[in-house]
Amino acid sequence: MTAARENVMAETARKTIRIGLIGSGFMGKCHANAFRSAPGLFRLPAVPELSLLADVDERTASAGAAALGFGRATADWRQLTSDPEIDIVAITAPNSLHADMAIAAIDAGKAVYCEKPLSVDAPTARTMRDAAAAAGTCTMVGFNFLRNPMITLARELVTSGEIGEITAFRGIHAENYMADAAAPHSFRTDPQGGGALCDIGSHIISIARYLLGPIDSVLGETVTIYPSRPVAAGSSEHRPVKVDDRAIFLARFAGGVRGTIEADWASTGRKMQLAFEVVGTRGAIAFSQERMNELHLYSAGARRGLDGFARIEAGPEHPPYGNFCPASGHHLGFNDLKVIEVVELIDALLGQGTAYPDFEEAYAVQQTVDAVKRSAVEKQWVEVASV
Amino acid sequence: MTAARENVMAETARKTIRIGLIGSGFMGKCHANAFRSAPGLFRLPAVPELSLLADVDERTASAGAAALGFGRATADWRQLTSDPEIDIVAITAPNSLHADMAIAAIDAGKAVYCEKPLSVDAPTARTMRDAAAAAGTCTMVGFNFLRNPMITLARELVTSGEIGEITAFRGIHAENYMADAAAPHSFRTDPQGGGALCDIGSHIISIARYLLGPIDSVLGETVTIYPSRPVAAGSSEHRPVKVDDRAIFLARFAGGVRGTIEADWASTGRKMQLAFEVVGTRGAIAFSQERMNELHLYSAGARRGLDGFARIEAGPEHPPYGNFCPASGHHLGFNDLKVIEVVELIDALLGQGTAYPDFEEAYAVQQTVDAVKRSAVEKQWVEVASV
Amino acid sequence: MTAARENVMAETARKTIRIGLIGSGFMGKCHANAFRSAPGLFRLPAVPELSLLADVDERTASAGAAALGFGRATADWRQLTSDPEIDIVAITAPNSLHADMAIAAIDAGKAVYCEKPLSVDAPTARTMRDAAAAAGTCTMVGFNFLRNPMITLARELVTSGEIGEITAFRGIHAENYMADAAAPHSFRTDPQGGGALCDIGSHIISIARYLLGPIDSVLGETVTIYPSRPVAAGSSEHRPVKVDDRAIFLARFAGGVRGTIEADWASTGRKMQLAFEVVGTRGAIAFSQERMNELHLYSAGARRGLDGFARIEAGPEHPPYGNFCPASGHHLGFNDLKVIEVVELIDALLGQGTAYPDFEEAYAVQQTVDAVKRSAVEKQWVEVASV
Amino acid sequence: MTAARENVMAETARKTIRIGLIGSGFMGKCHANAFRSAPGLFRLPAVPELSLLADVDERTASAGAAALGFGRATADWRQLTSDPEIDIVAITAPNSLHADMAIAAIDAGKAVYCEKPLSVDAPTARTMRDAAAAAGTCTMVGFNFLRNPMITLARELVTSGEIGEITAFRGIHAENYMADAAAPHSFRTDPQGGGALCDIGSHIISIARYLLGPIDSVLGETVTIYPSRPVAAGSSEHRPVKVDDRAIFLARFAGGVRGTIEADWASTGRKMQLAFEVVGTRGAIAFSQERMNELHLYSAGARRGLDGFARIEAGPEHPPYGNFCPASGHHLGFNDLKVIEVVELIDALLGQGTAYPDFEEAYAVQQTVDAVKRSAVEKQWVEVASV
Repeated sequence: MTAARENVMAETARKTIRIGLIGSGFMGKCHANAFRSAPGLFRLPAVPELSLLADVDERTASAGAAALGFGRATADWRQLTSDPEIDIVAITAPNSLHADMAIAAIDAGKAVYCEKPLSVDAPTARTMRDAAAAAGTCTMVGFNFLRNPMITLARELVTSGEIGEITAFRGIHAENYMADAAAPHSFRTDPQGGGALCDIGSHIISIARYLLGPIDSVLGETVTIYPSRPVAAGSSEHRPVKVDDRAIFLARFAGGVRGTIEADWASTGRKMQLAFEVVGTRGAIAFSQERMNELHLYSAGARRGLDGFARIEAGPEHPPYGNFCPASGHHLGFNDLKVIEVVELIDALLGQGTAYPDFEEAYAVQQTVDAVKRSAVEKQWVEVASV
Repeated sequence: MTAARENVMAETARKTIRIGLIGSGFMGKCHANAFRSAPGLFRLPAVPELSLLADVDERTASAGAAALGFGRATADWRQLTSDPEIDIVAITAPNSLHADMAIAAIDAGKAVYCEKPLSVDAPTARTMRDAAAAAGTCTMVGFNFLRNPMITLARELVTSGEIGEITAFRGIHAENYMADAAAPHSFRTDPQGGGALCDIGSHIISIARYLLGPIDSVLGETVTIYPSRPVAAGSSEHRPVKVDDRAIFLARFAGGVRGTIEADWASTGRKMQLAFEVVGTRGAIAFSQERMNELHLYSAGARRGLDGFARIEAGPEHPPYGNFCPASGHHLGFNDLKVIEVVELIDALLGQGTAYPDFEEAYAVQQTVDAVKRSAVEKQWVEVASV
Repeated sequence: MTAARENVMAETARKTIRIGLIGSGFMGKCHANAFRSAPGLFRLPAVPELSLLADVDERTASAGAAALGFGRATADWRQLTSDPEIDIVAITAPNSLHADMAIAAIDAGKAVYCEKPLSVDAPTARTMRDAAAAAGTCTMVGFNFLRNPMITLARELVTSGEIGEITAFRGIHAENYMADAAAPHSFRTDPQGGGALCDIGSHIISIARYLLGPIDSVLGETVTIYPSRPVAAGSSEHRPVKVDDRAIFLARFAGGVRGTIEADWASTGRKMQLAFEVVGTRGAIAFSQERMNELHLYSAGARRGLDGFARIEAGPEHPPYGNFCPASGHHLGFNDLKVIEVVELIDALLGQGTAYPDFEEAYAVQQTVDAVKRSAVEKQWVEVASV
Repeated sequence: MTAARENVMAETARKTIRIGLIGSGFMGKCHANAFRSAPGLFRLPAVPELSLLADVDERTASAGAAALGFGRATADWRQLTSDPEIDIVAITAPNSLHADMAIAAIDAGKAVYCEKPLSVDAPTARTMRDAAAAAGTCTMVGFNFLRNPMITLARELVTSGEIGEITAFRGIHAENYMADAAAPHSFRTDPQGGGALCDIGSHIISIARYLLGPIDSVLGETVTIYPSRPVAAGSSEHRPVKVDDRAIFLARFAGGVRGTIEADWASTGRKMQLAFEVVGTRGAIAFSQERMNELHLYSAGARRGLDGFARIEAGPEHPPYGNFCPASGHHLGFNDLKVIEVVELIDALLGQGTAYPDFEEAYAVQQTVDAVKRSAVEKQWVEVASV
């Protein structure tokens, strides 16, 4: 066994990169799991080590570190961003804190993995983008659904010309987590939280951009379905809601395509209708996160009477599905998509390829969000700022 | 930070259990990933450590250990089953080797986590079951699809009486991995591999039993669709196939329900149609692994004109979905189901609950498989041996 | 307008064929509607005229004739079968009366359009088949679902070799109209009614035969889910049920294919799950009457990573859809399928093509039904009588 | 038989109403079939008689009359609208001729059944509406898809409060009949034909109004995907296209609901995606004409973990389905929906209920169409004219 053991040692003499994670909630747990799983599923140029966890207080941080497998904990995120051992700072704190944390990490020379939305307004996002650009920082923004192999396939079908010239785009992100009028105020309904358009509209906007390129101008409106909500669960005291529950807009892509996009976090019955259809002159593509392991493809070239949307099921022909499973039909899940993000970030950090979506891209998404909000106020077409 | 670090240490002062894994292929990778992910997703009574990997030769073993994160490697599985450091022996070797490995591990006092099918015939499975029973071994068999929260929900709906008295069961496991006549011989077509009924029929049998209890007797036939196959990929030399490509049978459950069950590994177009419908006097349930995050439920009590199968989407209301994600609609994937198996095994080993399906259950599945094969030969109803 | 009127007269100088209909219930209404609609949708060699309606008594017959547009009515079906004006006798009376009516009509030289099942046992069906054969009668049996253009397409895909050699067939007809334990006895539960296998199993058997040819032998069982039922709606008095609620069997087709077939009229939640899958070496087909305007086709030849079942929607490329509507996506309904039957009968009667399914075919279906019942008793494979 | 015959005579001594039909193409055939079928399926206060058919020339008219079963034919539609025998004038001529024909018929005291769109612009539609209102004419406009029992059910669920306060509407009508760049100019691409918004957008607008009431204002754009098309099939000569291939707009309903609506006749792969989702505070409804016999209903009141969209299948609980078939799951087709229109028109004409949608309603739809076109030009919110 000795020889074999040495071989293992040799093979595992890969560089270690140390992760500092801010936040141990929903997304913090996802990040930790992704970093932990990635090296067993992908051949990485470096092995991530769960090094330091920061959370709001020492008790939460310690408990989180223990639960998620971090070696150390801190109640002060600034300690984390400046910790010399840390290579990647992963940010899963509330949206309004992203900017300070990310810029501190950038200034300290770390790579940054930040949850979407990058921030709650474009000017703030711009400072983050500018800081990263100036420092040459390797960045990744967690748009979660975007790195689904089925969406990668969709993009290939679009960019290869397989479905011809694109003539239409229809996109929606509808969920029901704020559909209950009794759902109380939270960080989500804080103007700093951004509203439905910022919170989930950013997903479908990022997918629209990934598939079809930049959006030039928008025309739309935002709707606050529930004008007031309880200040806390069960409370009879209500406070006005100052963010949108729903946004609907028309989009003109730089490439000329016209599209419709909707975001609605009060869509009763919808658990995750992140869906789109791309229509081209020679085919069409339909997808919904409700069935995330399927892509529906219509090809105009089918024989007469035998045409129809084909239900393509995810399999190893759709990289990097094969890293998770060598056989078709076994299904990736949400947490697997986070692994794909993490792998691309580590690869990019070690000089293998680029990370996408990065701060540059996330800033562009935020610019689109802001343009829609302005259009809703001005009631006219608004150009999306281009820089 | 010192205090926090101590807290982390205190919290992580959980027992460690060491894993010895045999096989680093498709399922070996799944096992390793599951053991690695489990402690970050579940609050476990002990933290698994990837200790030793065995594979067919030193080179493969070393490479596998490095890729999957094991500390040591060996080309001799007997070294692994007898290694004093190892607590759990995980077996992902070819089906025909399961028995020797499992019994060696049982004899050495290890817990055993074995991939399905337990073995390729019931007598062999019985020796494994008997050894485990005699030693009081904690065992778990990897039936993969069974631990899906949607199937757990299905069982609750059946056993609670929600859909009334059960009147019918229809089950199928159809895949296409042997649908190509040019697919060559492999361990699958070896009589020791068991054929389609043993290989994938065991999945739908295990689900049928989980939902409705034991099957008393069976009547069916097996079909060898391709009577010969190339000896190797691309070879013009063919050799006869001695296993079934497909099996179809009627089943009488001990509870009185009559069902139909089919297994087909040459079902062109089907990536993973592991599907069933349970019909009751007051409702019905339909499921397919093709959309593994959905369960379809019909309730007879709906108002007139508003009845229909409801598409229930997986969410935190369906444990242990919430351990993977606190929000609905985010989808579990195949690898997550392996995590659920591993968690239950560790819990059981540490005295929290029982592991299911264990060797006892897997033996009963194999008895059912054998009875179908006998029925196919005898062309009559055959009782499933009860002990 | 005079000239145009003369043209109309000239064009409409087509032969008239007179219809005598027995029964004005569910199916009687369907027949009348089909005969009335057919000449406006198809270019028929003769125009049907709704001439005489027979029903159980004069009041029912008169009301039925008025409602359905017949010129005359009678309470004596023998008057109808012998009426010299009548060309086609359409039979929608209870199953047990089919034989007497059909043979009387055959003896009187009429064409016969009879609802399925032809009779409730094969010997009786044989007398009908023999009488028609001896007299050279033009016959058509109303199997309703069979003449769907999507099923015609399925057959073409099978017989043309499009999906290769057929390796498997799975068929089911599940409905819920007897799913309620409180559903009382009726003609359906009369041994002369035939039970679920005869009543709806005949549909899926006829489709199986249409797609794959004759069934040589069967192995199966029949189940009486509710051993007794109320003698009348709401009654507390129960009487034993002597027919099957459900039948499940394996089938060996003459061509070598093995299949599974199920009939269940107590399948809670299922309104019309008349569904099948045909698997071949180069493709597969799936259909359900629940979505009767779709056929799902998998073609093995698709490019790597782009394969999947295509959802083909009914359109004018699928004759005779175009007779109903020149544009795709407009959907045929159940009543349209009866029009197709009627058109084929009239065409055949006037020497244009042959009517299918005729008494010969319906007799073969009934032989298959009887063989399954015998197999259920004998608990072994039973050959389907071949003459 | 004498007595019975007299009864039939007595029962059939219903009033006869005579139909004059203009146009014997796609829709003309539908109308004729509907008038012919209606009295055998519904208990009508009067029986329609196919009296006179008008088409572009004598030959076409005569052939059409013979094929569709009309007694007389004419090449001059003015002869038809003024024919004293005619009770109902049915108009299936090109859109741009609707107004002259309808007004002539109104002036002659006929009831009018006109295909949609009422006309190609609102001012023209208004003259038609005004003429009908002044004369007290019974009118019906053939919006085809609207009278589907599933859409009637959707409306009941909305208006009864079953799904709570409505918070969102999403509607689309996408087809592919102009998706081919080589599709030549036709009446559809004539500015008098109206474009996609007028041609098919009117369907989804009429459904939106039926479900949620009037639309107050709109904001949108129209897109001409193919700026030029061949002058004839196969021609190399191209002429500019002056109508829209696609329109997308936001709608504000008078009741406060905000919606998105799209029309696209160049949507590759879509045969009939006339689809909508209505979201409310306590439920949601989804429908697509692609599966026109289903309505999907989400009810917020379901038990925890068992909620989901229920797939309601059309049945006799959904009037007037039962007039076509007394059993669930048998499917209505497109032509059946035209029967429903005809029945309602005849009932209304004979004083039983009112016909919907009538000219008043169709005019309002056309106003909405015009407002969207104006918004596309003005690039701002436009109010829909209210009178």
